[in-house]
Amino acid sequence: MHIVQVGMEYDVLKENNKIANSNYRLLKENGIKTIEFMGSIGSGKTTLIIKLAERMRKKGLEVCAIAGDVTGDDDQRRMRESGLEAVNCNTGHECHLDANLVRKSLKDIDLDRCDAILIENVGNLVCPADFPLGADYRVVVISTTEGDDMVRKHHDIFLHSDVAILNKVDIADAVGVDPSVIVEDYRRLTGGLKTMYMCSARAEEGIDEIMSVLRL
Amino acid sequence: MHIVQVGMEYDVLKENNKIANSNYRLLKENGIKTIEFMGSIGSGKTTLIIKLAERMRKKGLEVCAIAGDVTGDDDQRRMRESGLEAVNCNTGHECHLDANLVRKSLKDIDLDRCDAILIENVGNLVCPADFPLGADYRVVVISTTEGDDMVRKHHDIFLHSDVAILNKVDIADAVGVDPSVIVEDYRRLTGGLKTMYMCSARAEEGIDEIMSVLRL
Repeated sequence: MHIVQVGMEYDVLKENNKIANSNYRLLKENGIKTIEFMGSIGSGKTTLIIKLAERMRKKGLEVCAIAGDVTGDDDQRRMRESGLEAVNCNTGHECHLDANLVRKSLKDIDLDRCDAILIENVGNLVCPADFPLGADYRVVVISTTEGDDMVRKHHDIFLHSDVAILNKVDIADAVGVDPSVIVEDYRRLTGGLKTMYMCSARAEEGIDEIMSVLRL
Repeated sequence: MHIVQVGMEYDVLKENNKIANSNYRLLKENGIKTIEFMGSIGSGKTTLIIKLAERMRKKGLEVCAIAGDVTGDDDQRRMRESGLEAVNCNTGHECHLDANLVRKSLKDIDLDRCDAILIENVGNLVCPADFPLGADYRVVVISTTEGDDMVRKHHDIFLHSDVAILNKVDIADAVGVDPSVIVEDYRRLTGGLKTMYMCSARAEEGIDEIMSVLRL
């Protein structure tokens, strides 16, 4: 929602950053590792989170998720059906989570017994970039089904994230996309410094490497 | 971008609507039919626009496109390679086109000799809903690759659009999605009044029906 309510000087982004820093401190004080997943609709964030959480639980970690969406509880239900405890976080109209919404969701999580929190942002490859939530890592997930031009079109989110993942590589041929183009665009955007990790969350390919990259 | 610059009472949406109305009048005065395509990244908007424009040109219509994106000119280049004249419209940071950006793009189009304009909004299923541009029809394009929960998660854009299209139905099985779930959600959301049209733009299935629905 973009209506501008005025009357006082107010910098939404600065205020968000303040709350994000406070979230980060709260989570660290409780020894909780937090990872945020950003990415477009259908990029496979929910499936990836479910697969990572399964592996984390097998390691004996207590994991909880925050399922961000504009409306509905589809992702929360999918997570719960997989055995992952999840809090639903609807923005109502907004196209991204913000640190304050996450702060409220944290009240519904038993921070004492939680080891890790996986946050799924609203499906959107543009707006979440500006709003850090207080996580240890920001991960962007894209899918081969989105075409090969994602990195060229959306610099911001790739530059604002710590880790980039290309999902659904198993159906790249079916959708006529060459993953190497995307990976090379990302390498170039990050000055040759960073690698995009490839996986198929549904086919369980590449998940172990992502566990290792995220130090889970 | 969501920084709020204040100092005067200002309703961004109202101002946008004013310019959208003015765009609509300008286009009507020039006898131009305009259709806006909204939808997520990778939903297939560009391919659908290219296929519709090919058919329109065969009917003897002069067509031009406005290719909206945050950065880059990938869509404009694809359109031009197909023989479709296209103006690039980068938002720079914003997650949606607005009526003023479209107004500026119209200056680069010869309105005297143009019969129809196809506008591709930025890939985003949330933000464009609030910003009409002045088109005759607003069309939302979703893809089976996005999952079966799009309608349940994003009421606004479906309620703000005139026509809804489900693309990539040819690979629904490959991505494990049942199109009938999406179609039924849309029917329910619109009080049983509206039908979602199915197509595969890449496989050229269902395009003629869309031509007819959009009265092209």
